[in-house]
Amino acid sequence: MPARLFSFIGGETGRWRITEMEAIVGEPLPAAIRLEIASGSEIPSDPHASWVLRGITSNERYVDREERRQIVAKLLDLGRPDATCAALIPIRKNEAWWALTQEERLSIFKEQSRHTKIGLEHFPTLARRLHHCRDLSENEPFDFITWFEYAPSDEVRFNNLLAALRAIPEWQYVEREVDIRLERDQV
Amino acid sequence: MPARLFSFIGGETGRWRITEMEAIVGEPLPAAIRLEIASGSEIPSDPHASWVLRGITSNERYVDREERRQIVAKLLDLGRPDATCAALIPIRKNEAWWALTQEERLSIFKEQSRHTKIGLEHFPTLARRLHHCRDLSENEPFDFITWFEYAPSDEVRFNNLLAALRAIPEWQYVEREVDIRLERDQV
Repeated sequence: MPARLFSFIGGETGRWRITEMEAIVGEPLPAAIRLEIASGSEIPSDPHASWVLRGITSNERYVDREERRQIVAKLLDLGRPDATCAALIPIRKNEAWWALTQEERLSIFKEQSRHTKIGLEHFPTLARRLHHCRDLSENEPFDFITWFEYAPSDEVRFNNLLAALRAIPEWQYVEREVDIRLERDQV
Repeated sequence: MPARLFSFIGGETGRWRITEMEAIVGEPLPAAIRLEIASGSEIPSDPHASWVLRGITSNERYVDREERRQIVAKLLDLGRPDATCAALIPIRKNEAWWALTQEERLSIFKEQSRHTKIGLEHFPTLARRLHHCRDLSENEPFDFITWFEYAPSDEVRFNNLLAALRAIPEWQYVEREVDIRLERDQV
């Protein structure tokens, strides 16, 4: 079975170099210069870690069959040699979001906000992995963590995607968001 | 903040006496004679525990606003003095279920299976708590755990509810279900 649980460890070691950490909404994260990603339930002990964010891949909750077909057809693999840029974006939504029913959340996600369509329009071939955190334990600092990888030449396109998503009604429910950018050497 | 994480510890100690354990589908659980329920992330160490099942309360995923209104209006509290009977029912759904989209799952849950309506028709005032397990870690033995409490005079009604639910299309996706019945002394 492929690993579902991933730990993102910010500190002084790791393959990815952190180039920027910006708190878009809410509390920032403590400073870190490198990021290590561990899979499975084994978290390597790192006395220098500033923070550890954990998330688990899960079933999709807002995507219909046709959208999934398009996403799967276009989604790129992580770990492509030319994708030397990455973004780690942990997000927490507020109580009002979680108090909505599934149908109300879906309506905001899809009809009011066109979340998936915006993604497919701006950057159909993006490599990404979505992790859920909310139900890992009682006190996770974020609800979701998304990990993106892209080539340096795609940075503007990636920034445009984020700007478009941050402008939709769904984002009014985001109460904490940190935008962490990273780079690694080409292998 | 109220506790969201609960541990159900089957063994030799605990307030609830296990009167019956039946594997409805799939593997049974090891024998146990008593059940302890712990809340929060602290799991009491019990060298005699046969099994520990953990689950976390979360946002609802298949209930609309009007159904929620009816459920909330009629849901009874746990811990009522006359509710000396309980049932602990852990369930795992199969891969086919989790490979469906949210809308497909909702359609089976609601239109094809009328899950919530059957609950409200058979036993509108039931006391229960639903716990999610699937996203707690990579290797949870069940996806959901539901805890029910009822008076001895309601046992037939409760059994009728379970029989009705086990007959709906949604239950064809259940690959493991254990039905554990319990009693406690009146306080």
